[in-house]
Amino acid sequence: MKGKVTLMCIRIGIYGYGNLGRGIENALRQNPDMTLAAVFTRRNPSDLTIGTADVPVCHVSEVSKYKDKIDVMILCGGSATDLPEQTPALAKDFCVVDSFDTHAKIPSHFAKVDAAATASGKVAMISVGWDPGMFSLNRLYAGAILPEGKDYTFWGKGVSQGHSDAIRRIEGVIDAKQYTIPVESALDAVRSGVCPELSTREKHLRECFVVAAEDADRERIEREIKEMPNYFADYDTTVHFISAEELKRDHSGIPHGGFVIRTGKTGKNKEHNHVIEYSLKLDSNPEFTASVIVAYARAVHRLHREGVRGCKTVFDVPPAYLSPKSREALMAELL
Amino acid sequence: MKGKVTLMCIRIGIYGYGNLGRGIENALRQNPDMTLAAVFTRRNPSDLTIGTADVPVCHVSEVSKYKDKIDVMILCGGSATDLPEQTPALAKDFCVVDSFDTHAKIPSHFAKVDAAATASGKVAMISVGWDPGMFSLNRLYAGAILPEGKDYTFWGKGVSQGHSDAIRRIEGVIDAKQYTIPVESALDAVRSGVCPELSTREKHLRECFVVAAEDADRERIEREIKEMPNYFADYDTTVHFISAEELKRDHSGIPHGGFVIRTGKTGKNKEHNHVIEYSLKLDSNPEFTASVIVAYARAVHRLHREGVRGCKTVFDVPPAYLSPKSREALMAELL
Repeated sequence: MKGKVTLMCIRIGIYGYGNLGRGIENALRQNPDMTLAAVFTRRNPSDLTIGTADVPVCHVSEVSKYKDKIDVMILCGGSATDLPEQTPALAKDFCVVDSFDTHAKIPSHFAKVDAAATASGKVAMISVGWDPGMFSLNRLYAGAILPEGKDYTFWGKGVSQGHSDAIRRIEGVIDAKQYTIPVESALDAVRSGVCPELSTREKHLRECFVVAAEDADRERIEREIKEMPNYFADYDTTVHFISAEELKRDHSGIPHGGFVIRTGKTGKNKEHNHVIEYSLKLDSNPEFTASVIVAYARAVHRLHREGVRGCKTVFDVPPAYLSPKSREALMAELL
Repeated sequence: MKGKVTLMCIRIGIYGYGNLGRGIENALRQNPDMTLAAVFTRRNPSDLTIGTADVPVCHVSEVSKYKDKIDVMILCGGSATDLPEQTPALAKDFCVVDSFDTHAKIPSHFAKVDAAATASGKVAMISVGWDPGMFSLNRLYAGAILPEGKDYTFWGKGVSQGHSDAIRRIEGVIDAKQYTIPVESALDAVRSGVCPELSTREKHLRECFVVAAEDADRERIEREIKEMPNYFADYDTTVHFISAEELKRDHSGIPHGGFVIRTGKTGKNKEHNHVIEYSLKLDSNPEFTASVIVAYARAVHRLHREGVRGCKTVFDVPPAYLSPKSREALMAELL
């Protein structure tokens, strides 16, 4: 039996070993049809200890040696500078999946990755995760079902890494964590079907937990946070100063989540209202993102075996391809 | 411009003109890339007035004359006796979509429809709607993402036609409406991630509104309802006797909805919990079902043009195929 499972295994490579890479490693253990083949790092490989025994840790410069040893390479770098370079480059030798999440730049990223994967005869998937990813899917399904309606996306409660980083750059701040929180009354208004127009401020609150240097001017820090353009100025922001111990004890998790809601009307005179709501409540943002990516890595492998080539998104993949179950089992158990 | 739209139009046939058929007719008006080509009925066509001008109403015996005039035939009959005969029969001449919803019989229905559609070179889709349908999809996606977890489906608050019919068959009952109601505390327990084992009684309540004959024994009616095996005996059931006027005034809608929730764990030591929740709140069950079907009729037409043959379910269809938007628009607007 063990032998059989090994034969079916999809060999996965992890490219970049941060929070997301570790999440992939953990997710693979929950999927017996996949196996971790190698981890690639820009650091000195001998400095890196991973959570899986007997798996090679290699420097990124060695990646091409693994061309025939990896079925799907999962890219775990950042969207700002890593993925725009790495995904097209690695798609020359591997089927790849990334979680590119800069929404405005998705079309140009897609074009580059599609050109590389089409030329190499590989399948690449970009922007896999929950937003973009599962949230995008729900926007698509709901919009196709209720053409006369309106979409709303809310994020949180959850930690925004970008906003936390922005606070940390302020003089006198030692550490910080920022939570994005959807406004409950706005959610309720959306669910009621009245299709409200909501400003940025009306949709989300921002709550900040800040560790300040002992001699720092807390009033100035709070003002600089609240007035920071793009990040905080358009929101109602609360700032709490706490100790480094409190930050570690109460705010070291990376929870996130959110809501995609579409309301729409049907009927001869549009007299019937409908609410479609999808929500996530996640204890660990990177681990959930990793779990979505691993399911799509399975799909990428299947598509490639069927002769599909080029770049795909979650919109292109038949749902059944995400599951290890047979078509018969899916029909009998889940339909 | 008008001419262009007409050229692209997918020609839809409606086979059976009850609540669902009328829902399809209304949904088509919200989808400019589709047009209603004909309605087929078992009744005398001249007795039927439909909501769309200049569309032929035909007897079902004439359906084969429309072989080349309809791109997708939507079957609006019932799952008990209509669809098991009609879907395989019509798949010989048409691409078809049905909403077959007897979960236990889906595999055998699939086999018959698949044989017919494969032989005729058509695409058939079965079990399209919200359960089976969108709920099934959400069970599949959530299960693939969180392999170590547990699924829960709750229905309601909504009208169960089957349960209402069962009450109407009791002696002394003139009319009745039954609501299936999810138990709020059970929903909360599921969302908490404790993975409760819930009995039938713990998940749903049943509330009945009954119009009794003037001389009927209400105590006996209430007892017969509450003790009815399969339908009510396993539930906490409430019975209200009301007047025919009250039934008409307060209970003539066909609302429904429900929740698909999966909770699961990730992390090195399964220390992180996640909740994926999909919910529907529908003013009109048949109109929403119709809206889902119409989106999948678009997908069926595209699949057929691409050379796909045989029977499909919602699990097989790439999400993008449901939308009238181009791949580029989907990527830019929704991903």
